[in-house]
This record gives sequence, C-alpha cells and structure tokens, in this order.
Amino acid sequence: MGDCGIFGIYGHSEASVITYMGLYALQHRGQESAGIVSSDGSILYHYKGMGEVRFVFNEENLRKLKGSRAIGHVRYSTTGTSNIYNAQPIKVDLLDGSLAVAHNGNIVNAYSLRRELESGGAIFHTTSDSEIILHLISRSKDRDRVEAILTALRKLEGAYSLVYLDEDRLITARDPCGFRPLCLGRMDGVFVVASETCAFDMVGAEYIRDIKPGEMVVISKDGIESMMIHKSVSNNLCIFEYIYFSRPDSCLEGKSVYQTRKKMGRILAEESPVDADIVIPVPDSSNCAALGYAEESGIPFEFGLIRSHYIGRTFIEPEQKTRDFDARIKYNAVRNLLDGKRVVVVDDSIVRGTTSSKIINMLRRMGADEVHLRVSSPPITHSCFYGIDTPTRKELAASSSSVEEIESFIGADSLRYLSLDGLMKAVGTKRGKHCIACFTGDYPVPIPEEAGKEALEKVISRIRLF
Amino acid sequence: MGDCGIFGIYGHSEASVITYMGLYALQHRGQESAGIVSSDGSILYHYKGMGEVRFVFNEENLRKLKGSRAIGHVRYSTTGTSNIYNAQPIKVDLLDGSLAVAHNGNIVNAYSLRRELESGGAIFHTTSDSEIILHLISRSKDRDRVEAILTALRKLEGAYSLVYLDEDRLITARDPCGFRPLCLGRMDGVFVVASETCAFDMVGAEYIRDIKPGEMVVISKDGIESMMIHKSVSNNLCIFEYIYFSRPDSCLEGKSVYQTRKKMGRILAEESPVDADIVIPVPDSSNCAALGYAEESGIPFEFGLIRSHYIGRTFIEPEQKTRDFDARIKYNAVRNLLDGKRVVVVDDSIVRGTTSSKIINMLRRMGADEVHLRVSSPPITHSCFYGIDTPTRKELAASSSSVEEIESFIGADSLRYLSLDGLMKAVGTKRGKHCIACFTGDYPVPIPEEAGKEALEKVISRIRLF
Amino acid sequence: MGDCGIFGIYGHSEASVITYMGLYALQHRGQESAGIVSSDGSILYHYKGMGEVRFVFNEENLRKLKGSRAIGHVRYSTTGTSNIYNAQPIKVDLLDGSLAVAHNGNIVNAYSLRRELESGGAIFHTTSDSEIILHLISRSKDRDRVEAILTALRKLEGAYSLVYLDEDRLITARDPCGFRPLCLGRMDGVFVVASETCAFDMVGAEYIRDIKPGEMVVISKDGIESMMIHKSVSNNLCIFEYIYFSRPDSCLEGKSVYQTRKKMGRILAEESPVDADIVIPVPDSSNCAALGYAEESGIPFEFGLIRSHYIGRTFIEPEQKTRDFDARIKYNAVRNLLDGKRVVVVDDSIVRGTTSSKIINMLRRMGADEVHLRVSSPPITHSCFYGIDTPTRKELAASSSSVEEIESFIGADSLRYLSLDGLMKAVGTKRGKHCIACFTGDYPVPIPEEAGKEALEKVISRIRLF
Amino acid sequence: MGDCGIFGIYGHSEASVITYMGLYALQHRGQESAGIVSSDGSILYHYKGMGEVRFVFNEENLRKLKGSRAIGHVRYSTTGTSNIYNAQPIKVDLLDGSLAVAHNGNIVNAYSLRRELESGGAIFHTTSDSEIILHLISRSKDRDRVEAILTALRKLEGAYSLVYLDEDRLITARDPCGFRPLCLGRMDGVFVVASETCAFDMVGAEYIRDIKPGEMVVISKDGIESMMIHKSVSNNLCIFEYIYFSRPDSCLEGKSVYQTRKKMGRILAEESPVDADIVIPVPDSSNCAALGYAEESGIPFEFGLIRSHYIGRTFIEPEQKTRDFDARIKYNAVRNLLDGKRVVVVDDSIVRGTTSSKIINMLRRMGADEVHLRVSSPPITHSCFYGIDTPTRKELAASSSSVEEIESFIGADSLRYLSLDGLMKAVGTKRGKHCIACFTGDYPVPIPEEAGKEALEKVISRIRLF
Repeated sequence: MGDCGIFGIYGHSEASVITYMGLYALQHRGQESAGIVSSDGSILYHYKGMGEVRFVFNEENLRKLKGSRAIGHVRYSTTGTSNIYNAQPIKVDLLDGSLAVAHNGNIVNAYSLRRELESGGAIFHTTSDSEIILHLISRSKDRDRVEAILTALRKLEGAYSLVYLDEDRLITARDPCGFRPLCLGRMDGVFVVASETCAFDMVGAEYIRDIKPGEMVVISKDGIESMMIHKSVSNNLCIFEYIYFSRPDSCLEGKSVYQTRKKMGRILAEESPVDADIVIPVPDSSNCAALGYAEESGIPFEFGLIRSHYIGRTFIEPEQKTRDFDARIKYNAVRNLLDGKRVVVVDDSIVRGTTSSKIINMLRRMGADEVHLRVSSPPITHSCFYGIDTPTRKELAASSSSVEEIESFIGADSLRYLSLDGLMKAVGTKRGKHCIACFTGDYPVPIPEEAGKEALEKVISRIRLF
Repeated sequence: MGDCGIFGIYGHSEASVITYMGLYALQHRGQESAGIVSSDGSILYHYKGMGEVRFVFNEENLRKLKGSRAIGHVRYSTTGTSNIYNAQPIKVDLLDGSLAVAHNGNIVNAYSLRRELESGGAIFHTTSDSEIILHLISRSKDRDRVEAILTALRKLEGAYSLVYLDEDRLITARDPCGFRPLCLGRMDGVFVVASETCAFDMVGAEYIRDIKPGEMVVISKDGIESMMIHKSVSNNLCIFEYIYFSRPDSCLEGKSVYQTRKKMGRILAEESPVDADIVIPVPDSSNCAALGYAEESGIPFEFGLIRSHYIGRTFIEPEQKTRDFDARIKYNAVRNLLDGKRVVVVDDSIVRGTTSSKIINMLRRMGADEVHLRVSSPPITHSCFYGIDTPTRKELAASSSSVEEIESFIGADSLRYLSLDGLMKAVGTKRGKHCIACFTGDYPVPIPEEAGKEALEKVISRIRLF
Repeated sequence: MGDCGIFGIYGHSEASVITYMGLYALQHRGQESAGIVSSDGSILYHYKGMGEVRFVFNEENLRKLKGSRAIGHVRYSTTGTSNIYNAQPIKVDLLDGSLAVAHNGNIVNAYSLRRELESGGAIFHTTSDSEIILHLISRSKDRDRVEAILTALRKLEGAYSLVYLDEDRLITARDPCGFRPLCLGRMDGVFVVASETCAFDMVGAEYIRDIKPGEMVVISKDGIESMMIHKSVSNNLCIFEYIYFSRPDSCLEGKSVYQTRKKMGRILAEESPVDADIVIPVPDSSNCAALGYAEESGIPFEFGLIRSHYIGRTFIEPEQKTRDFDARIKYNAVRNLLDGKRVVVVDDSIVRGTTSSKIINMLRRMGADEVHLRVSSPPITHSCFYGIDTPTRKELAASSSSVEEIESFIGADSLRYLSLDGLMKAVGTKRGKHCIACFTGDYPVPIPEEAGKEALEKVISRIRLF
Repeated sequence: MGDCGIFGIYGHSEASVITYMGLYALQHRGQESAGIVSSDGSILYHYKGMGEVRFVFNEENLRKLKGSRAIGHVRYSTTGTSNIYNAQPIKVDLLDGSLAVAHNGNIVNAYSLRRELESGGAIFHTTSDSEIILHLISRSKDRDRVEAILTALRKLEGAYSLVYLDEDRLITARDPCGFRPLCLGRMDGVFVVASETCAFDMVGAEYIRDIKPGEMVVISKDGIESMMIHKSVSNNLCIFEYIYFSRPDSCLEGKSVYQTRKKMGRILAEESPVDADIVIPVPDSSNCAALGYAEESGIPFEFGLIRSHYIGRTFIEPEQKTRDFDARIKYNAVRNLLDGKRVVVVDDSIVRGTTSSKIINMLRRMGADEVHLRVSSPPITHSCFYGIDTPTRKELAASSSSVEEIESFIGADSLRYLSLDGLMKAVGTKRGKHCIACFTGDYPVPIPEEAGKEALEKVISRIRLF
C-alpha cells in the first residue's frame, strides 16, 4: 500500500534545503521518486530523480535549486508506470511563465478529463493526474492565475492535497472531502505546508492548523489568503492514515497518531482477549498497537521479530526456494524468546494475507507453541480509489473470505480483527466524519465506472516508455 | 556549422537495424543526439540518447525497437539547448494513437506559431520546431490524419525535410523551397527515405528520386501516394550542401558531390592561380576541392596537414597556453614536407576566420615559406535561417571585412575566394535555382523579425532544464 | 563503531546465493562494501562492490559466481581508506592456483609484518590486513597448502576470524583469544560458517558449535578436519558483541543476545533506579535493554523516539544550522507522549557523548520534564585494537571525564552506567573469560607501540588512490 | 594490429597537462586505455581509465595529477585481457617509496621471469609485462635505485621502450635491439621523452635525438645522465613503424615517415605498374603511398573511398546480413567516380586478407571495371613477438598462400606487393639494420617456446576478472 508526501515553503532564504529536510521526514509516504521545484521570483528550478531522498539529492543539485520558495514531493507508485516522467513535481513552461504542481491523492474523473483535454488537442507527457491539473490551468480563459486554478480544481473529483508554485505564488489546496492530510505551519516567520506534522518537527516549524477540506490557500509576497474551492464540503480524512500511513510522531486533526494506535491496541485487547505468554508486534508499524494490547491485557511485551534495516526492493532467491525468503529477509524471529511460548502477534492490517501466513510460519519454526494474530483494524473488503495503492478487490483477503477462512489460510491458532466501532472509538470519531470506504464500501465520492485501475491501465498501456 | 539527418523505412522485417545503419551514414550531419522510433502496427517504440549513433544504440535497445516501420534522426545543435528533451524523433501519445516526427530544417515562423498554440493552452516540453508540428496535428479539426498533417504543414514557413510515423503510415515531406535535401529509395522491395544518398549506399538501397519541393509522400500498406502541400513551389536547395554538408559520396539532384567539389577547386585554380610548390587540403572536408585545384594548376597535391581521428568536444588546455592548441590537436602539419615550400592551402569556407589563422600559423611554424589560402566558396556575408547553425552576422568574417582585411587578419600571403559565378558554374545552376542567401542576403522566404536567434533565445531562456 | 561479517559454505549447488543470503543477515556488521568469491573446483570467481549487499549484488553477477563453494564478506571501515581495493574477500592468483581470504578482526603486528614482507620485495596493493595473510602464504616454503596457512597464521598477533577459499578447500580459523565470534553450522548436508547465528536462521542452517579460539577447520571433499593453530589459547570473546554488535536474534557461546540484553536492563534498573513516568529506548539497538529496565522498574515502556528507516550516510544541512540536524534526521521524538513526563532513556553505550546530548535536547524540546539517561554498559575508557573501530582514547568521553562531568556535558537530569560486575552477571561470565579491555585497559594481547592508528596511517598515507 | 605509446616530462609546472597533450598525439598507437602518473617530489598521483584520452581525462582528474614530473601511456590490446588492471602506467608503493612504469613492447621471457618471481612468493595483480619489471626492482638487493633498475632491465629479453617515475627521477630506457621507437626532446628548458616526434610537435617541444638501443637515461634534479644497459647492441627498429604504425608527420631515425611512405608508393609503381584510370588509397593509412604511386605512374590520384569518422568498436548487424557491413560502415565508395573505371587501390599491408576482399567487392559494386591491388609492403609471413599484435602465423594470409592464391581469394584483377628490396630502398636501410622478421622469420632475439600467445594465455586464463 502506498501514498505520497508533499511539502512547500514560501519566503525562506534556504527554501530548497528546508524542503529537502521536509521530504526526509515524509519519506515513509513514498520511496519511488523525489523531486523539488524552487523559484527565485523569476525562474523555476527543477530537480527530480528515482529513489529515496537521500539518493536523489546532493549538495550540488540542491545548490542549483535557487530561490526562497520551493515545493517538494515524494512518490509511491505501483510498478507498472514507475518512471522519471511520472516523478513529481511536474513543471511546465507556458507563454506567461512557468508553473509546477505536486500532489497527493487520486482524481477519480481523471480518465474522462484527460479524454476531453486530448479531444481538444492537448498532448500529455505523463500518466500522472497532476498533468491534468496543469492542462486545465493552461487552457483556462481566466486571466487571473488564482481564478484559473480555482476553475481547474472545481473540475476535479476525488482526492487531492496539492501544492502549486509559480514565479511568485505558493498555492496549496485540499479536496472538499479532505481525503488526504495537509497542514499549515510556520518557521522563522514564513509559512510552510506539509502532508504531516512530523515534517514540521524535522524542520523546526510550528504547527498552525490543518488546511480545511475544500480550502485553497494562496501564499505570496502580499501575505496569506484563504478561499473555498467548493461551498459544500465534508470531513472524510482517510482513517488509514491513523492505522498505518502517517508516522506515529505526527498529529492528525490535532490528535496524536501514536496514542490513537495504542488505543486501537487496548480496545483490541478488550474486544479479543487471549490467554498467552507474550505479545509481539510486527515491527515497526504495529509497535504502538502491540504495546497497547500488552498494557491492556497485562501480557508481557517482547520484540519477537527483528526487522532488518537493509532490505532492498528485490531479492535474488535461491532456486530451491528457501521457504518464505522474502519475509525472512525482512524479519527474523528470536528463537530463544519464542521457544514453547503462546504468542500474540499484533499487526496493523491484513491485505492479501500472505505476509501474515509467512510470519506465523516463521514463529512456529522458531518454536512458538501457539500463535494468535490480532489485527488493529477491521477487515479490508473494498479497494481504495482516493490515492492509496490497494490491490483490486478480489485480491483482498477479506473481500470474499470470512475471518475463519482467513484464520485457517494463514495458519493462526486464532485471528481477531478490531471492530469498526472499536476503531471509531479509538480515533474518537463517528460515522460520516472519516472515509472508511475500505471497510464498508460506502464511497464518499462516487467512483465512475472507468475510474478503476482497468481504465487507467488503458491509458497507461498506450504510453510505453523504455 | 551544423545540420540534421533523417531516415525512414516502411515494411522491412529489420526496420530499426536498417535505420540504425542509415543513421551511421548520416552521422556527419549531426553528432549531438540520435534517436529511432519504430512501429509494429499498433505500438510505437522509442529510444534516443545524447551523442553519436555508435554510443547511443546497442543490441539490447535496438532489439526493443520492434516492428517493420521506423524513422530515425541525428541532430546537430548549438550548445545552449543541448539536452535529451530536444533529441528527435519526438513522439507523443494522443487519444487516437501515437505519432512521431523527425525533421531537418528551421521553421522561421516557429516563434509566432508557438505563441499562438500556447495562447490556446498548449503545453510544450521541448524547444524543438518538431513539437510545433505535433501540436498543430493534435489540434487539427481534420478527422483524417493525412489531411491534418497537410493542414499543419501549410502553416509552416521556412525549411523542413521531415519524416512522420504513426501506427500505420510513414509520411515524408519537404518544404516548398526544398531547402534541405531529401530523397526516396528502395531496398528489398520496400521504400526508404533519407537526407542523403550515401545512406542508401550504406543499407544497399537503390536511389529512385528526390522528394520534390512542396511534396508530401504517404507510404502505407496501400502503397505510396504523392501529393503537393503547396501549389507554388521553387528550387532552393541550400548550395552549402554541395560545398560542405553532404558527404562527397552522396549525389544531390542527381549530381555527384565529389565531382562538383573537384570542379569548384578547378575553377578556383583558374580564377585565382598562384605560383607555388604544393597544394594541400584542410582535411577531410576540402580534399576534393584541393585535388581539383592541384589538377588544374599542375602543382603537386600533398597531405600537408594530418587530421587526428581522436578529437573530443573539449580539450583541457595548459594554463600557459600553447598557441592554437585546439587547431593543433585537430591537425598536425608535416614538418619535412613543408620546409621551405610555397604552399597553397585549400579550404571549403571561412566562417569566423580564427581556424584559418591558426592553420596558417601552424604551417609557417613548420617551415612553410609562403602560405596562400584558396577558399572553394564565396565569402559568407549573411546568416542562415533555414536550418544551418551559422553564427550571427556580426561574427561572420566577411560580413564587415573586405577580403584584404581578412587576408591580413589570418596572416596569409594571399587569400582568394571562389566567385559566386564560379560556384554556380561548378554546381551547374543559375540564379534562383538554389538558395545562396548566405552569400547574397537574398532570402527566398522572408525572415520575420522575431525569427532570429534572439527571439528563439527568449523562448529558450524560459526553459531551463538541469 | 564497526566490525565486519564473514560467511562460507562448501558443497552446495547454490553456494553463492546462499552466501548472498548469509551476508544479508550479517549486514549490520558492515555496510561499506560487500563481496563474494566462489569456486567450481578449478576457477575462483570474484565480485565485490562498495555499499550494502542489496546494492552490490544482482541476479546477473550472482549467476556468474559459479561453483559449489563460496565465501563472503561485509566490511565496516573508517572513512579514510574506504575504497574498492580494500573490499574483501581479497583474491590473488599464484603459480599453483588461486586463493581468497575474508577476515574480521585486527592484526596488531600488521605493521611490522608488512615492513618485513616489503623488505623482502613484496608488493602490496591494499592497506588491508588480509593481504598480509596472502603474502605470508605465498612466500611459505611449505609445500602443503594447509601447512602454509598454519605457518602464516602463527605469525599473526591480535584478532582474526577468517575464511579462506582455494580451488578445493574452505578453511576457517579463529585467533587463540577468540576475540571475534565465528560459528559452524550445517544445511542440506553441507557445512557453513558465519560470524553470527542469525545468518544460519536466514539460510535455514542448523547451528553446530562455535569455532574454538585458536582452532583451524579445513573443509574439503575429504570431509572436515580440525586442528589447533596454537597450543595455548584463552577465552576472550569481545563483550561488546553482547552489548551492541551482534543481532539480538543471534546466540553467542550458546547464549541468547536478546535475553542477555534484557538482563543488562534489569540489572541496570536494580543498580540505578529512578522515579519516572516512562522508559524509552534509543531505537533499535537499546530496545531489549530498555524493555528489561521497564519490566524490572515497573515504569511503563514507550516508543518515545521514532527511528527513520531512510537515513543516508551524509545529509546536506542548512547553513543556518538547524540544531542537531543529524540526530533529528535519524530520530524523531513523539511530542504528545513526552509532554510533561519524567523520562528514562536507555542507551547501550556512550562513545563521545555527542549523540546522547542531542537526543536529550530533542526530548526536552518535545516537552519532557526530566530526562534520565541509563546506559546498559560501563563507561568506555580505552580504545579497541582488535577490530572494532572505536575513536582514539582522547575522544572517548569516559577516558578523561567523570560520570558527573559527562552527565553535565550531555545535559541529563541524571546519568548512570551499568557496573562492570552487573555486566558480567548479565552475560554470566567472570574476569578473564571475555575481553573487557575497553572498560579496563587490560589488553589480552599486548599492543605494539606502532600498532595504533598512527602507524597504520603512516602506511596508508603512502597509498593514495584516487 | 597494435602497439602502445609512452610519454614523459621532468620539471615542468604543468607536467600532467603536457603529458595529456602528448598522449593525444600518440593516440593512434593505442585506444584501449590511457593513464598518467605524476609526482610532486614526495607523492605519486595516478589516474587511468579505459578508452581514448579524450574520454579518460577531464579538468578535474588532470588537476589532481599534481607535480612537475609525469609519465603517460596509451595502450593497445587484444580483446582477451582488456581491463583496467592492465592499463598503464602501473604504480606500486614499496617500503621506501612509490614507483611507476609505462612501457611499449613485449618481453619474450616474460613467462619464465614471472614463474620465477611467483616461485619466490611474488603476487601479481595484472598480466602486464610492466608488473614484472616492478617486481624485479622491488626484489633487487641493490640499495641504489638506478642500479636496481639496471639489474632488472638486464634480465629482460625482447622489446621495451619504457619510462619509469619515482618521487624524484624520470628514467627512460630502450632495449638493446631498439625494436620500438623512443626519442628525447626539450621544451621550456626541460626534457621530454616520447614514442614519436609527433608528440613533440603537439606540445611544442624540440626533437634532440633518439634514445639509443640499449641506452638508459636518468633525468633528475641533478640533470641528465646516460648509461648503457648492455654492451652489445644492434639496430633493429621495427620497419613496420615506417609502413603503418607511426604517424606520417613523425620522423624515425631522423627520416620523415611521410616521405618514406611516398617512396614506397613510387617504388611500388616502378616495380608493379598497371594500365589504369585512377589510383585510390585505402584511407587514411595508405594516403601517402597511394600519392607516391600516382605521382610515379602518372595515373590520377582520387579519393575513391570515403572513411567515416564515427566508427565504433562494435556494430549491430542486421540478421539478413548486409554484405560486408563492417567494411561498409568504415568506408564508402564514391559511385560516380568509380563507374566504368580501371582502379588501382593502394593499401599499406595485408594481414588476413578479409578487409581487402570486402573493399574490392565494394569497389566493383559501385561500378569499378577493374580493381588492381598494390600493397606498399612485402607479404607478412611471420608473427611479431616484439610488441605488435599480429595474429598467429596460420591466420596470416601470406604465411601459407602464394600471391596468386591471395589475389584470387580477395578477388582482385591483379595483386602486387612491394619487394623487400624495394622497401629497404624506400627506408634507406640494409639487411640487419631494421627488424624485418615479419617478412622473413629472422628474429633478432630468439623466441622461447613458451613465449608465444599460447603460454601467455595460460597465464591469463588463470586470471579471470569480472
């Protein structure tokens, strides 16, 4: 599963270095590519590359990203269209100047917008939603750039948190449902925006507030101005940000992700207790939930799985396949600790179920007597169309299998999920205040038939870069 | 000075390898970048890179260029905008399919066309004229692709010899003045097009005829069809193709470049004889003219300058500058041969005069008693706007200096140019049948004020890729 | 601080892939370079590169490492001589065949051995101790290779755990003090050797026993044979392997590193209790000790510092330096959790004290009321000369400062170290059974005057590769 | 066929840049690798790389080659052992300082010397003869470095022209037969040495004299000193330097290569006249000989073959092989010129005969009526063991076939070689004054049985780097 991270700053003498630091903090939201566009008031400078922030940027290319304004992006992507052309920010040069956009989220009417633009003669160079926004702006009849952006954004349906930069403005906007997080901060007297507050901690900025659903904020030398893209808005922040995506040291809607995850673990322990000797997390994403489970249940917390810091994207497996090599290279179970124990493993979610199965195998091989899997979120039954890279519905374990069937498939002595009510309680929310479509299928914004992966793939299959 | 080379083939089982061979033969027309687009009838495959054909292509990338149709391009460029984005062919993906274009020449109304397209919302990704053609096609209201291309080409003013490829058509066209060469051939029963006939010799194709000024030829599975872009056409093939650009083993308009160059040398000897001991060429471009001069004058031909085969784009010079290091690394004079001799050096042209000056210095240093420079073309007094990269007018030695002044500047004992009439006679042409604007300033197609380098640079300066 | 990791396998059809997997598990012992040498019985194949295992090896180069025998190495190094020439294994070609060596440890008489060999005409190509071993073997008068190696090893003083491979033998040896770990295992009926048992878990091998101090084991098609290098041996396994180097899922001398570290934490809590609200580790190396401290003290365990998985070797810092940028990019403190809390931070060791200082600053900035640092090892007062890259003595915080002075320097409310007795108790050992020289200065093998960094640097300074 | 080039300079403030320029002029002697070692009096700096000088060196790496003394090397090599380890100069660090060697030639007792050194424990890292010299020096008992080198050189049999550099001496030496050229010059008051005088022209140095066969010259801050390696010396400069290797603008033994080649062509015309319409060279190596032939015979000289400047090492050929693609990509015949003509092609030598065959095919295909091949050297019947990369004897066309058979094989209307006496006359020499072993089999230095390629390959096959 994946997402993206964005960052922006306006008016700082070291704008691109601050943006680079911000991207470092947002790296968990996407490792496929990283990019920065900066502006010195008359020219937009651009650098992007495949891979992690630490590999893409160096002193030399950062130094060339001149100017006091900058936006940055880290991208997560499915493998199919992983290439530098799709890396963001995307920057173009129009008659009256340059502009760049970086965005997080998924536009559900992207396919029909693109068809319409292409019918009008537009030539696309990427398969990214962001380029659609640029074409809409470029073709706008509005003479005022801010008006042109508003008009463009009003045509978009779906999820977007975005930052836009031209020669003298930094504009940030969030879709009317507020699917993806986006927040505003201040450092050294200037404004910064970021996907998550952990980026503010990194650069030493102070959190001011979240950008509101449907809000567009224009930052320029004239100061800051807020306006609404749409009149009708709602609160539909993706609840998975609490469960998995955001870093535990971030705050969402003013709430600590760390504490929320511990609460999920505590409620899970209340809802689904089990008689066991130790509680272990699947590190690092389930650390908090496992700690909550351990505290509530009174069962000792242990680090039964050691996570490697050196895993690559691909491994070369022996032909006589070592069982579960991919899991083995990521985690190693602590033999002496597990021997003869009844173990509760806490994981944050189950997507396909294959990793869970491998982990349970590994624990048993290392001597565990019983393995009970506790999941700190409800069963995922539906795909996400708002920017998270979930597999198609039929690949989701819980879309067609009961909990008992999954329990049996993964080989656990018992499997229990956190209830949806339990999750709501942990987050402190109620129905209609967060997007929970992946657990219920109730999509806040309707999904056009052609918006699925299939339609997108149609577009993509025409664009073969090698 | 520079130019570009194009190649195309339709219906051959090894289309991309044949195109690669053709580009090898056209390499002298441009060494900055090389590219091929091929088609298997449903998908367009694409590969391009910076540098010479031998460095860009290898077995692996050629193998991926599938299909029986292909077009290729080698590019010459000024340094400013030397980047992979401007490498050709340029390929884009539209709603109803992909298309690619490679072209040689310069569109003089490029700036105004681009302004117009950008006003209509078009987003450009390169500074190449070719992209303008693609946008014109993309925005055409014509439902038929051939009509759309005709309409697009009719908007272009200036010089173009181009090849276009989509899923099932190879289209080649030449501007109504026929500035740049373009010829049609046949091999293994299928059609090929190329900038010069030497590419046909390379691939084993037979020359059929030149593409006519203003002609567009459509090659498809239905065969070959010729149509005229414009009713009014003229013959204005660039006469410099005879003097310098084309390879001596090519034929232009059915005439041997080799023999034409020897004639230039012979007429030059008639017009400007001198009492001397040896005639030497500036190798290799002046070999033929020097041989002609030697034969006509009866003065022995010698290889007084040895050309290095290993010169790079840039040299590192010692700080205590060795005099004329750049010329020295390109040519070495044969000391024993020159010692005490009266030498006639034949060169094909003088642009700025600096190289001539260095060569004359070198010959004297190696012992030459007298050095007489004979140039096998008239003084270049005007810049070219039709695709040849000449310097701005004021940098041209002959634009503001008399022959005597240049003679003195370069330090020759005597300097003589071939007369314009002598050149016409050697080529077998008369006024109005070739473009000779660089010698006379009579431009066959008017040059818009903003068409100069300056306007282009305005566009380019907005597009800074790093 | 750093170390190296070695691996070897004899007789497996996928020897190089298994070795690659083993190196993956040993990656924490060295990330500077990685290499494998394999043998098919007549030729030795070789590949090595700078960086982590995942970046150095791919399917293509692994496939070329043919044969059923292989040895591998991951290297840690100081920056000065970080280059591919020093990467291991080192392989050479002698008159009677090829041979390769990979080793972990530091030869204290390396300088004098090298001087002696060079006086005899030997030409060195690296600054690595391993090359000394190869020259000793190459110059041996022993006709038998096993004898030659024994003779060579007997000249070495200091620490070494090594694997040697020639066309038909895998030899592994450990110095008479047994400074660095080395163990023997079996998988699929063949023998494997590795620095740590976690590599056996990775490849699915079974642990047999440790290689004994002073033992040399020859594995060939004739089976396995053990012999002693020296008669007099001792037990001086580096106690820092328990504290920091080895992975928690490894066993040393049959004892679980994980459990030993928890015991260190428990004893530390007994020895140095403190009234506080939460216990947090410096992740991940102090996780076990912190958990032990929390359990023993009854103070809740929390993840107060989040460790980034994406840190690079170097960061670009803003010029107006953000305070403690390097620590900040590695760890982020969880603001809401720490706010107003009295915090116990557990760390495994203090070297210079600068990192501790930065972490404490960070915790305070995020709201901690009190910060008490507990260190699960005694003060490091002396440099290591047996293979661990500790700084020179004067850079060690505890070599010249009292605990009170360090406490004040790092800004902790209190600082307490585990006592040496406490450490011994946790490890279950007594004086003379492990090397504890870094805490006491009692070096089991005398350090020649010229063995320090200074002498080595003298050698290195002559060998400047660029 | 191939060779190597060496250059050295002592006492110039821009020693490495001058060396780089010198290597540029010697590039024709080897394009496989290039390297420079410089010295500032205390440290030896080193850079080398694969490929041509222009690709290996840049401002950055040249700037790091500090100091006022430098030696350089360009290498030609057979494909088998083409790797960076064999690139020269080779530099090593011994106990008492660093030293580097670059050499041109082939040591015929290399194999036995290497065996002997390896038996004594020496570890080799390359397959280059130069490393043998370094090991001999390193193991010398002579306390004086000059003595040590003399002793080492006295053990070598075969061909060598070498330059040696240590912290404060530049030493140059030539084998007692003087197989390969080597000359001494002066520029800006300091001494330079080079394989050919064309390098002196390039850097602006003045030719002083040739280094004598068996002479060793020591250049240091104490001035220049000459000594003899052997008492008994002879004159056996490789006559092929006149025919092919040296650049025409160089002088050998004070004689112009250019004029010597023209004489070969003139004598060839006298010896083997033919009734024809034009004389054409195989460019560029046969230009001078062809011009001589044309002048003597009175048949007009023409450029019937155009040589491409852009040929790479490997070409991708179409599967339905275009006939003679490799020759075609290197040369193109000028169709109009050849049509219906009786053509004399002059080539400098025939090795295997395959290229001649392809060129003759090409000329006929382009319309030539008759093709007469004239070769400006005698038939090559024996392999060279003194540094020129000729094929094994059986691959040499003339080793087993008569002139008539070769004529028939290559498809010429007539084939004639220059007689050995004609060659001697052109060079102005007599029997015993030059090495002509490739034409006669009379080797001036006996070739040990194991000195052939086969023995060398035995060594090489053990050293597989990948």
